[in-house]
Amino acid sequence: MEVDIGNVLGTQPGLTEETLDRLDDRVAAAHDRIADGMDADEFGYASLTLPETADPDAIRAAVEPFDDPAAVLTVGIGGSALGAATLADALESDVDAYTLDNVDPDAVRTLLAGLPLDDVVVTVVSRSGTTAETLANFLVVREAMDAAGVDWTQRTLVITGEDGNLRRLATTHDLPALDVPTGVPGRFSVLSTVGLAVAALQGHDIEAVLAGGRDGMASLSGSVFESPAYAYGATTYALAERGALTNAFMPYAESLETFAEWFAQLWAESLGKDGLGQTPARALGATDQHSQLQLYRAGPADKLVTLVRPTERAASPIPETDLDGLAYLGGSSLGDLFDAEFAATEASLAAAGVPNVRIEIDRVDEHALGELLYGMEAACVLYGELANVPTFTQPAVEWGKKAARGLLGGGDFPEAAAVADKREFRIGE
Amino acid sequence: MEVDIGNVLGTQPGLTEETLDRLDDRVAAAHDRIADGMDADEFGYASLTLPETADPDAIRAAVEPFDDPAAVLTVGIGGSALGAATLADALESDVDAYTLDNVDPDAVRTLLAGLPLDDVVVTVVSRSGTTAETLANFLVVREAMDAAGVDWTQRTLVITGEDGNLRRLATTHDLPALDVPTGVPGRFSVLSTVGLAVAALQGHDIEAVLAGGRDGMASLSGSVFESPAYAYGATTYALAERGALTNAFMPYAESLETFAEWFAQLWAESLGKDGLGQTPARALGATDQHSQLQLYRAGPADKLVTLVRPTERAASPIPETDLDGLAYLGGSSLGDLFDAEFAATEASLAAAGVPNVRIEIDRVDEHALGELLYGMEAACVLYGELANVPTFTQPAVEWGKKAARGLLGGGDFPEAAAVADKREFRIGE
Repeated sequence: MEVDIGNVLGTQPGLTEETLDRLDDRVAAAHDRIADGMDADEFGYASLTLPETADPDAIRAAVEPFDDPAAVLTVGIGGSALGAATLADALESDVDAYTLDNVDPDAVRTLLAGLPLDDVVVTVVSRSGTTAETLANFLVVREAMDAAGVDWTQRTLVITGEDGNLRRLATTHDLPALDVPTGVPGRFSVLSTVGLAVAALQGHDIEAVLAGGRDGMASLSGSVFESPAYAYGATTYALAERGALTNAFMPYAESLETFAEWFAQLWAESLGKDGLGQTPARALGATDQHSQLQLYRAGPADKLVTLVRPTERAASPIPETDLDGLAYLGGSSLGDLFDAEFAATEASLAAAGVPNVRIEIDRVDEHALGELLYGMEAACVLYGELANVPTFTQPAVEWGKKAARGLLGGGDFPEAAAVADKREFRIGE
Repeated sequence: MEVDIGNVLGTQPGLTEETLDRLDDRVAAAHDRIADGMDADEFGYASLTLPETADPDAIRAAVEPFDDPAAVLTVGIGGSALGAATLADALESDVDAYTLDNVDPDAVRTLLAGLPLDDVVVTVVSRSGTTAETLANFLVVREAMDAAGVDWTQRTLVITGEDGNLRRLATTHDLPALDVPTGVPGRFSVLSTVGLAVAALQGHDIEAVLAGGRDGMASLSGSVFESPAYAYGATTYALAERGALTNAFMPYAESLETFAEWFAQLWAESLGKDGLGQTPARALGATDQHSQLQLYRAGPADKLVTLVRPTERAASPIPETDLDGLAYLGGSSLGDLFDAEFAATEASLAAAGVPNVRIEIDRVDEHALGELLYGMEAACVLYGELANVPTFTQPAVEWGKKAARGLLGGGDFPEAAAVADKREFRIGE
């Protein structure tokens, strides 16, 4: 993974090389804090040791009973689903991957109708075993399997904490089960059982993912000038302090679209605290040049744009044509066009003084993804240290969970009462 | 369509009823300007008359030769693709819909490999007939059909301007062709041939879509208190003026996920000008409660959240369970859970003083979508009037197009030279 921050120097908001020099001492101190946390296996910091502590053998053993399934279905939400979906959508496989991470009844019905229920592996993921959306969906899936005459106990893999509902379920029915690692918040769990079990079921090389992660670990050092991950974390932090409250995150690779979603969760939920944080706005190159670029270039100077791309890709020649004014495309390739669009967007933003950062990997494969995911996590942890926010908590999410539970009669929560206070001011009808 | 702005009163940033009263005179003046533009068929404003000027008979006649296809593939980008994709993803059909709106060679290859080339209808959409991405993709698709022994002239529907490459192609090969309406920018074209041809190919009731649009037209009036569309436009404008530079747009319906993308283009490309505008951040309820909500609730006070939902949906009972602490879910339904999550998120934001607006439709069907899409367009046009920006242009997009074309040897453009000025500051490797 390489990070190029040349296009944040002298932009608006922007940094100077002096800013980076001054920041470097703080990065060194933050790195010491992070390294101590990793050594002591502290909550949250333990996430950054996963490339060494995850156990690929245990994951392979757990998926081994499911011989060559047609599909895998992740039932989870948020950090319990996005890591697996990121790898699944980035890497090609003959085993189709689906995700149930919402409780929209219409979408659930449509998904179940299209699934080969007798040849799917259901991975149900919840640390506590009580996450309402996940458990409700799991109950619905299990019932659908029953109705289809499929023995759900033969098609289910459990990923959960040491005890709780799902652990007991696994014990009772002798289901294969994997541990959610302790000390690792969901959004930092992609390099554990939570992200890797589905990858293993799809036949991907999970050792290579972890090896990429270890390369990311090795590249952490106490200087913004040496560590790409820290360069990204320090740059985004310093730009946010100078007014870049939005981070438009724009991969140039359709296979990395879910990665942008994963990043959005990591960034928003970790750093959005105490009135601080940076809003991730997901975009996709080149498509969103025809959508968001106008705003990025000419709208409020409150953003930075992060451009991510693999440098190698298929070429795909464009056929010669006699269509007017398009001769220049013939002999070129879709890859050339894609690269030209990337360069044009970068230059367009730079020319308008909009800060932009380039993140490059060689290609979208297991190793590079491991390094990229690890790098973004380390960048996020560094940003959190510099901003002095509690990176690994998510108190605002808990509020809504209690309110929803109270509304459904699952207990007496003051949060649910607040719903009745809704002030109405309706226009229409 | 109903809009409820109760939860922007007294928030931070926020409005008061007095703000709305004061704004109402400006809305009346803006409405007069908009109505004049519609009457005179002025560029851009003509978009708002489409529910009356679009010709469903012509669309039906153009798609009639394609008898019951297996699939339809839109080849277009930006406004030439997103409207059709929005309707396709919102409404169920036995005819699968695909979109080629990017030039990622890996994604194009994967898509083509999975398409039934002999039973797909390709709609190629470009007003000018020179859009590089669209024409390159069309050439690639045409070659793939040739290679598969499929007569592409029997499988292609052209949607383009009065002249240019695609118009000549249609004439030469006697292809069915539809006109892109004049005076309508791509991002405002969903209620024309550009959005409706695919819907017709999928068997949807395009008259009902247009009837919904006409209901939207009828509800426009010179007061923020009477018109839901204007209520939304005026509220978002006034909140942006008070610091809500991000509009987190969060439908509670998976079928409306592409609608959020369509909205993001409409909002960003129309309003992101002169240093003004509001960044649309796409989210999805309830999934993103476990991702973005922490930031919305506890991050910088620079945003409003727009919550969109259909009030009717399938119920989908949750099976009874003896799992610990989950008895409350049994006897409930996924729909109840979804609604409780919606109410909880709304209350959570309100309790934290984060402005949020609720937009409701009865159900996701043709009529409601027509009204919703029209309403968002009218809201956007009103916002543009109030902010005094040129809503219907997109100069910053043109810069990048010229640079990309220059880089590919398609002419001599100074924009391409700027790419060589890239300042590098690389970390890693």
